[in-house]
Amino acid sequence: MKLALDAMGGDHAPSVNILGAKAALALYPAIKKIFLVGDGPTLEAQCQEHRLSSDRITIVHASEVIGMAEPGAKTVDLVKTGDADAFISAGNTGACVASATIKLRLIEGIERAGIASPLPNEHGVCNILDAGANPEAKPQHLIGYAIMGTAFAKHVLGVADPLVGLMSNGEEDEKGTTFTKETFALLKETPGIHFIGNVEGHDLFETPLHVVLCDGFTGNIVLKSCEATAKAMGKWLKQELTANPLRTLGAAMAKGAFKALKEKSSYESYGGCPLLGVNGVVIIAHGSSSALAIQNALRVAMETVENKVNDAIREALAPA
Amino acid sequence: MKLALDAMGGDHAPSVNILGAKAALALYPAIKKIFLVGDGPTLEAQCQEHRLSSDRITIVHASEVIGMAEPGAKTVDLVKTGDADAFISAGNTGACVASATIKLRLIEGIERAGIASPLPNEHGVCNILDAGANPEAKPQHLIGYAIMGTAFAKHVLGVADPLVGLMSNGEEDEKGTTFTKETFALLKETPGIHFIGNVEGHDLFETPLHVVLCDGFTGNIVLKSCEATAKAMGKWLKQELTANPLRTLGAAMAKGAFKALKEKSSYESYGGCPLLGVNGVVIIAHGSSSALAIQNALRVAMETVENKVNDAIREALAPA
Repeated sequence: MKLALDAMGGDHAPSVNILGAKAALALYPAIKKIFLVGDGPTLEAQCQEHRLSSDRITIVHASEVIGMAEPGAKTVDLVKTGDADAFISAGNTGACVASATIKLRLIEGIERAGIASPLPNEHGVCNILDAGANPEAKPQHLIGYAIMGTAFAKHVLGVADPLVGLMSNGEEDEKGTTFTKETFALLKETPGIHFIGNVEGHDLFETPLHVVLCDGFTGNIVLKSCEATAKAMGKWLKQELTANPLRTLGAAMAKGAFKALKEKSSYESYGGCPLLGVNGVVIIAHGSSSALAIQNALRVAMETVENKVNDAIREALAPA
Repeated sequence: MKLALDAMGGDHAPSVNILGAKAALALYPAIKKIFLVGDGPTLEAQCQEHRLSSDRITIVHASEVIGMAEPGAKTVDLVKTGDADAFISAGNTGACVASATIKLRLIEGIERAGIASPLPNEHGVCNILDAGANPEAKPQHLIGYAIMGTAFAKHVLGVADPLVGLMSNGEEDEKGTTFTKETFALLKETPGIHFIGNVEGHDLFETPLHVVLCDGFTGNIVLKSCEATAKAMGKWLKQELTANPLRTLGAAMAKGAFKALKEKSSYESYGGCPLLGVNGVVIIAHGSSSALAIQNALRVAMETVENKVNDAIREALAPA
């Protein structure tokens, strides 16, 4: 298991990337190698600063940061040549998707790659697919997402019978736009998926549901709106809890609850979103990733490689 | 000030509608009359049960509930004939929008009505427009929303210089779909509005921003996703806070904080969303409205009538 990490990608790179890699090496013995891709001298200095010294680390120099895209592209090369099993980046999502699609190419039978982004759900994890790789999707693209999301949920998340919903502006079959109605009709006829119909906001968190299909524009906006709401709620709650000494004391006594909620609701716990549909494992991490988020992105990469999700996708697409 | 309330509309009607009307009458002397529209005998019995007896209440009998649409339509009639200044409904949104558009007609120069739905923002209130009246909007419709949302924020919410954003999948000018890019270009050229560019999820809550433009499909999904996140966070926090006795005690000491957060983040505190663009004041309340939500929807109706938002919209649309 060899992973290629874009060490320069993300708002807090390279420091959190180094720390995330260090933590992942300590936690996951299955990871035999992490390639840190980026500016060589910078990364060497950072590794020294953060006391990361291991024969499981190899620094791969990528000359320049061109619009955040260059180290990303170099990282993809390592997967293309077979030196690495997966690449992980918290850099510019558009650049990652473009590099991965061009260099690794799409799996035969897939017309567009899509990002599966996990949200906490009472019954497990619900993946928004596509979370932004393909903003102006066609109905046919969402059929590919349904098949790939099902394979990912089955083989990586261990869900026996993944439930697939279509994001719409109402749960009734007839709700939606021309686009969602066409997609709905196609999904009804797609074998090998368990399509439960249109879903709405509350289904993301409360309904047994594993894959929510939408175009990348909608998915990106939904994901960011959910994240922003959780963040605002957390911030406002903190303000209220420190508004007087009694509340502050009460909050201190109940602090385990806030910590647990934060763990459940934070993207850091999930860490990375697989870009499904390319020949290779590609994990896209949040731009504002912390060390914990990077560590978990590396874990998701490892699990996705181990569970051979692309073989499962190819099998699902093969003519019966 | 006479308001027509669809007394049979909403998941918890008519009981919460009666209680909401009763509370509004007690709080707002400016409301001289509330017409309760719905099944006469049912409403009379409910008024008796909830001890609502006032010469400021008139029950208007509407024969049957046909797919939740009939009392809504009858309520619109009261506005059309001038008997009422505004109508308020928590019933089927599509039916309300259709009745209002057909019977009251659109304001001259407006091509589509839009629902302005408020979200709590650190700097005041941010209105999503359109929250679902017009799912497949054209760029030109959003220009109308920008003008109407600006007039509403200025005249009803008292914002001197309302800031208008366009919901997109990134803040950079070049982000978005064909639809949002066309809309962006038109907004740049629209006089009388203060357009700040593309906005994302976190802007809804943290950035000074008063109107967020989107098509009704996107707006509806964003709104429901934000509501669902807030609800899930509240529920999960409650579960965590009651997980052991120490946490439960701490939570009891800090309970004022949870109450304040709920008040800030609940749609009940806002109560109603104006349907902008029709000749008349139409307030659409949440389907799952409580008595408090109905009370606040009646308040929003009163404020919207008092501040003559439609005169302001007509003025903004008049050729210079």
